[in-house]
Amino acid sequence: MGNTWGRILRLTTFGESHGPATGGVLEGMPGGIRIDTDLIRRQMERRRPGQSGLTTARREADEVEFLSGIFEGRTLGTPIAFLIRNRDTRSRDYEELKNTYRPSHADWTYEKKFGHRDWRGGGRASARETAARVVGGALAMHLLEGVRIRAGVWAVETIRSDKPWDRLDWDRIDETPVRSADASLTSAFEEAVRRARAEGDTVGGIIIGLIEGLPPGLGEPVFDKFEARLGAAMLSIPAAKGFEIGSGFEGTRMRGSAHNDLFNPDGTTRTNRSGGVQGGITNGMPVWFKVAFKPVATIMRPQPTVDREGRPVVLEPKGRHDPWVLPRAVPVVEAMAALTVADFILLQKTRQ
Amino acid sequence: MGNTWGRILRLTTFGESHGPATGGVLEGMPGGIRIDTDLIRRQMERRRPGQSGLTTARREADEVEFLSGIFEGRTLGTPIAFLIRNRDTRSRDYEELKNTYRPSHADWTYEKKFGHRDWRGGGRASARETAARVVGGALAMHLLEGVRIRAGVWAVETIRSDKPWDRLDWDRIDETPVRSADASLTSAFEEAVRRARAEGDTVGGIIIGLIEGLPPGLGEPVFDKFEARLGAAMLSIPAAKGFEIGSGFEGTRMRGSAHNDLFNPDGTTRTNRSGGVQGGITNGMPVWFKVAFKPVATIMRPQPTVDREGRPVVLEPKGRHDPWVLPRAVPVVEAMAALTVADFILLQKTRQ
Amino acid sequence: MGNTWGRILRLTTFGESHGPATGGVLEGMPGGIRIDTDLIRRQMERRRPGQSGLTTARREADEVEFLSGIFEGRTLGTPIAFLIRNRDTRSRDYEELKNTYRPSHADWTYEKKFGHRDWRGGGRASARETAARVVGGALAMHLLEGVRIRAGVWAVETIRSDKPWDRLDWDRIDETPVRSADASLTSAFEEAVRRARAEGDTVGGIIIGLIEGLPPGLGEPVFDKFEARLGAAMLSIPAAKGFEIGSGFEGTRMRGSAHNDLFNPDGTTRTNRSGGVQGGITNGMPVWFKVAFKPVATIMRPQPTVDREGRPVVLEPKGRHDPWVLPRAVPVVEAMAALTVADFILLQKTRQ
Amino acid sequence: MGNTWGRILRLTTFGESHGPATGGVLEGMPGGIRIDTDLIRRQMERRRPGQSGLTTARREADEVEFLSGIFEGRTLGTPIAFLIRNRDTRSRDYEELKNTYRPSHADWTYEKKFGHRDWRGGGRASARETAARVVGGALAMHLLEGVRIRAGVWAVETIRSDKPWDRLDWDRIDETPVRSADASLTSAFEEAVRRARAEGDTVGGIIIGLIEGLPPGLGEPVFDKFEARLGAAMLSIPAAKGFEIGSGFEGTRMRGSAHNDLFNPDGTTRTNRSGGVQGGITNGMPVWFKVAFKPVATIMRPQPTVDREGRPVVLEPKGRHDPWVLPRAVPVVEAMAALTVADFILLQKTRQ
Repeated sequence: MGNTWGRILRLTTFGESHGPATGGVLEGMPGGIRIDTDLIRRQMERRRPGQSGLTTARREADEVEFLSGIFEGRTLGTPIAFLIRNRDTRSRDYEELKNTYRPSHADWTYEKKFGHRDWRGGGRASARETAARVVGGALAMHLLEGVRIRAGVWAVETIRSDKPWDRLDWDRIDETPVRSADASLTSAFEEAVRRARAEGDTVGGIIIGLIEGLPPGLGEPVFDKFEARLGAAMLSIPAAKGFEIGSGFEGTRMRGSAHNDLFNPDGTTRTNRSGGVQGGITNGMPVWFKVAFKPVATIMRPQPTVDREGRPVVLEPKGRHDPWVLPRAVPVVEAMAALTVADFILLQKTRQ
Repeated sequence: MGNTWGRILRLTTFGESHGPATGGVLEGMPGGIRIDTDLIRRQMERRRPGQSGLTTARREADEVEFLSGIFEGRTLGTPIAFLIRNRDTRSRDYEELKNTYRPSHADWTYEKKFGHRDWRGGGRASARETAARVVGGALAMHLLEGVRIRAGVWAVETIRSDKPWDRLDWDRIDETPVRSADASLTSAFEEAVRRARAEGDTVGGIIIGLIEGLPPGLGEPVFDKFEARLGAAMLSIPAAKGFEIGSGFEGTRMRGSAHNDLFNPDGTTRTNRSGGVQGGITNGMPVWFKVAFKPVATIMRPQPTVDREGRPVVLEPKGRHDPWVLPRAVPVVEAMAALTVADFILLQKTRQ
Repeated sequence: MGNTWGRILRLTTFGESHGPATGGVLEGMPGGIRIDTDLIRRQMERRRPGQSGLTTARREADEVEFLSGIFEGRTLGTPIAFLIRNRDTRSRDYEELKNTYRPSHADWTYEKKFGHRDWRGGGRASARETAARVVGGALAMHLLEGVRIRAGVWAVETIRSDKPWDRLDWDRIDETPVRSADASLTSAFEEAVRRARAEGDTVGGIIIGLIEGLPPGLGEPVFDKFEARLGAAMLSIPAAKGFEIGSGFEGTRMRGSAHNDLFNPDGTTRTNRSGGVQGGITNGMPVWFKVAFKPVATIMRPQPTVDREGRPVVLEPKGRHDPWVLPRAVPVVEAMAALTVADFILLQKTRQ
Repeated sequence: MGNTWGRILRLTTFGESHGPATGGVLEGMPGGIRIDTDLIRRQMERRRPGQSGLTTARREADEVEFLSGIFEGRTLGTPIAFLIRNRDTRSRDYEELKNTYRPSHADWTYEKKFGHRDWRGGGRASARETAARVVGGALAMHLLEGVRIRAGVWAVETIRSDKPWDRLDWDRIDETPVRSADASLTSAFEEAVRRARAEGDTVGGIIIGLIEGLPPGLGEPVFDKFEARLGAAMLSIPAAKGFEIGSGFEGTRMRGSAHNDLFNPDGTTRTNRSGGVQGGITNGMPVWFKVAFKPVATIMRPQPTVDREGRPVVLEPKGRHDPWVLPRAVPVVEAMAALTVADFILLQKTRQ
């Protein structure tokens, strides 16, 4: 439990940020599917650090080695295991963290939970782990014929888009390293990040996701509603603090008469405030959702904290760290959406 | 899958709103625990319709009959099965819904998913199902020594509280049927609901929850983070459209230097923007979270919709329906929180 | 865990033998399937006590009440909950068992495990629980088009059939209450039981099962091999102590050259020592298997045992008890086979 | 599903025999446990091919590389991933098997199930996969303080021991490569294998296992009875065709009065025909069980078979193959027992 996502299509991930490797095992892929290695490479490239001047300098090679489950370029139906070596680990940077807890990191909670902690960086709690999710997600995408999943940055710090989901620039997201879903905000987002970085600070923001082409009928009453699984998938991403589908929190301001999505004769709806689900089950309309990411906890300023004995210490900034992670989180959001959707699609085959 | 919540403490629910009964089976309770039937009755009473002039007139008796797992007032460690008969079903009210899909209800999606639908009311998608959750949650509370779970209404339509979570009136929530977490807003909430009802309309809103007394160490990396499971639990409640923990969506406006929760020497934190979790694992601080509920879909006005053949029909309002469900959703939120927390507590025993 | 069988088609059972009811919840049935209530009744009738002079006098009505998941005679795709009231409980017979442990029963182990025990009969460990399995199995049979599952008594005490599986009298099993798979042994079996009963003793034996019409491809490498799941299903039946598939224990006496099943051009095999599976996956040949049942533990003779304080006591025979359970176990074996096969069939849909 | 064993302690294995690597991920280990690498090496050594003149010539290095979950020699509580490279693969030996199905192998069934097959040897169905089980089992043994698990060869072809389980030579099993549980049969077993090999043939046999020091209370009613889980674990081992616990199939010949295990005042039993379980739950007495292994399917004689088009072909013997696998299966039986027991021990912590 905990390290596995999915019920039919099951991704188990493993790895600490400064251990030998990160990786995963994907079970439940049908046999005979031709693997598109370009797709995997592309998604990994989008998650890679060091894509722009705004991101961290650590450049991971992130080569994916497949260990099983693929033969002659096609899936065998058996578990697909893969690993990514952790090369650029530089754990000497972390030596002083051995006895110190970084604020708003998982150092303290992991130690309380497990009694023993890999203090060389974030260990298992590091966003490094999401590399395995991106590989798993790219594999899951092979099952999503006719389905299109995209995500982009919708808000950074105090700046947020005022466009409705169906007016965003979905096709232009990858035009810049910012991955803005609203092209008119790209510069403003960049500027906000630059300003924060100049002050040794960090920002958070909101990612919006869109899933088009879903068949009706995905989602399981009552606990595995589509939005419950998708929400859990998103909330499992490091730094995620909120999730909403369709009108979400804003929709609570509306009355029922205004919020209800009226039907067209063909079963589509005139509006889509529900975000593509009714009663936890997809209705064939696009699913749109938002994920809130807190500001990055590692700041480039001295911070007061405590050590194992509870003594106050000052944490000095060290190395180079990302002032934001949103653009790199975009492929992770897509990967988790792909894994969740593909799992529902396979499960729905058992209902018919 | 889908009808079971939990990994060690597992609640399976069953029942359609107009079928013979609703109920559940709770597995994983240790043996020898004395059952507090008053607690169960009290929570069921809080979920009951017809508690005030503001709520639906349908008065369900909601007597819980236990079928197994309890002997001489104490748990046997075996599954606790229970049922609640559906007495006041009046399915004649629904006859005309046989071939018509209500907007923003699950009628259409269930039919697409399963091919066969119980058209007498919401069927399995009805909030009636949450009665079983409340029983399961009340049973789960027996495992929560030292833990206190409370929830209250934080926003109704456009009115929302401006008090931080630790200034809310947690002890006064049950003073009125509104179950407002901010006592100063009780009348405003009531007024908003009255106004909507007078216009044949409905409202939604936001419920805030608080879990105090949690030990550090609950939550499982990486997919079963505490907030991922809690979020899924909440998003599985009918009409829920959003979930956030701690600073959530608002927190994305802050910078890292302002958002980080600095440690006290004893491991507690000076602030609690993280909402009691770091890296997906509880840190012993109070967990606070919000759940967004869309406005009730059943309105007391004529609505255009379509029938099975795609022909336009007008849906005439019928019977009496709740213009809001927030106060009744409060014990459901508590129940899902209790089930989730108790499950994590049992699971954590295996880690030590 | 523990009370649920299956991964897609999931039966959760509940109930103590002398509590209010026994029952179950079956999840994962597709929607729209017409329920054959006669089939359910027939299987329940075959499991019923008191079918012949050889069996226990306790006559349970065993009426199945369905609570959910079926509407207008067809499945809704939602959980099918059902219960069977325990009417003829007579717990006064058991009062003296409150502080005494019956040899080779679960009294002592349940008390050690759970700390609290329903001493009125076998409680959760009673074969009474298998009633819910028979209902679940009969429902599962609705998914088994083209598949035929049968079981019969193959050995009683020291008498065992010498016919190979494909020469047994599969069509004549229900001709007598003995349910002998080898018609020539019916009288011998009866006689063995009579003799044991006359001496206040009990017998065990072996049930043979046959599953015909299975498609190739069922079973999951590597832990959920078809025989691993089928074996677990059988070994979960009260009093089962052994399971073998195909040539089983006897097959270990053969050499590879004699044991191998050679192929026919169409992929069928000339022999079927493997019992319809290769590498854990069905090959389309009939699956045949045997299940060993220990002699009934409740004997009609005084037995020395101990009470809670470890003091020696003599257990006096009381009431009327079955000297064997094999004929009644036949529909239970069939039910567990049906649940297991239907689950594999649904799961295999996700592989294609 | 299928590739994961366990509920709390969960081993997921991956790998085809002639792919890049075999390995596994073990979840659910508590943190802080010091890893005994010697124990792992020792068990791997016992499973290794080429230990004696009687076994296959292929010598796998079988070095285990750990990728995660261990830091400074102790467990982190996070998934322990490991791999074993497949070095000596020589797939050229298998080229002719591309279009031919070997009798009583999984070639045909895998192709039917998955549509695409790794024809270079057994692929996922190969006993090569059990290497990962042995690593997982050795890790599980770290949780078994006070528990001792041993297994040995009890029967080969037509020769079987006539000693009861408590008179076998448990301490002498590893004295010879035969791993006989009955030292007096070592030569006879060897002779049987030699004779078969000389004729290009193979043998099967029976392994007996013993688990001592178990606490009472392990096992879960009703489907996850101790013997049901243990049986499934054993039946998932390649070539296993039968499982019995305690008196098993032989016990069916006895009457209840002779079979019942009478209590001693301290709750132990005078006899142990039940094999350490009552009602599916351990009673603290030693668990003893037997596993039947069919004769090895790969024989060193020409065999008639068919190709993909159903045309008859003759399969010529090639390379060197083991005429038996029982001694190497001994550590696999121990590993599966260890995984199953450790999982039950962790699960039982949630019951108390």
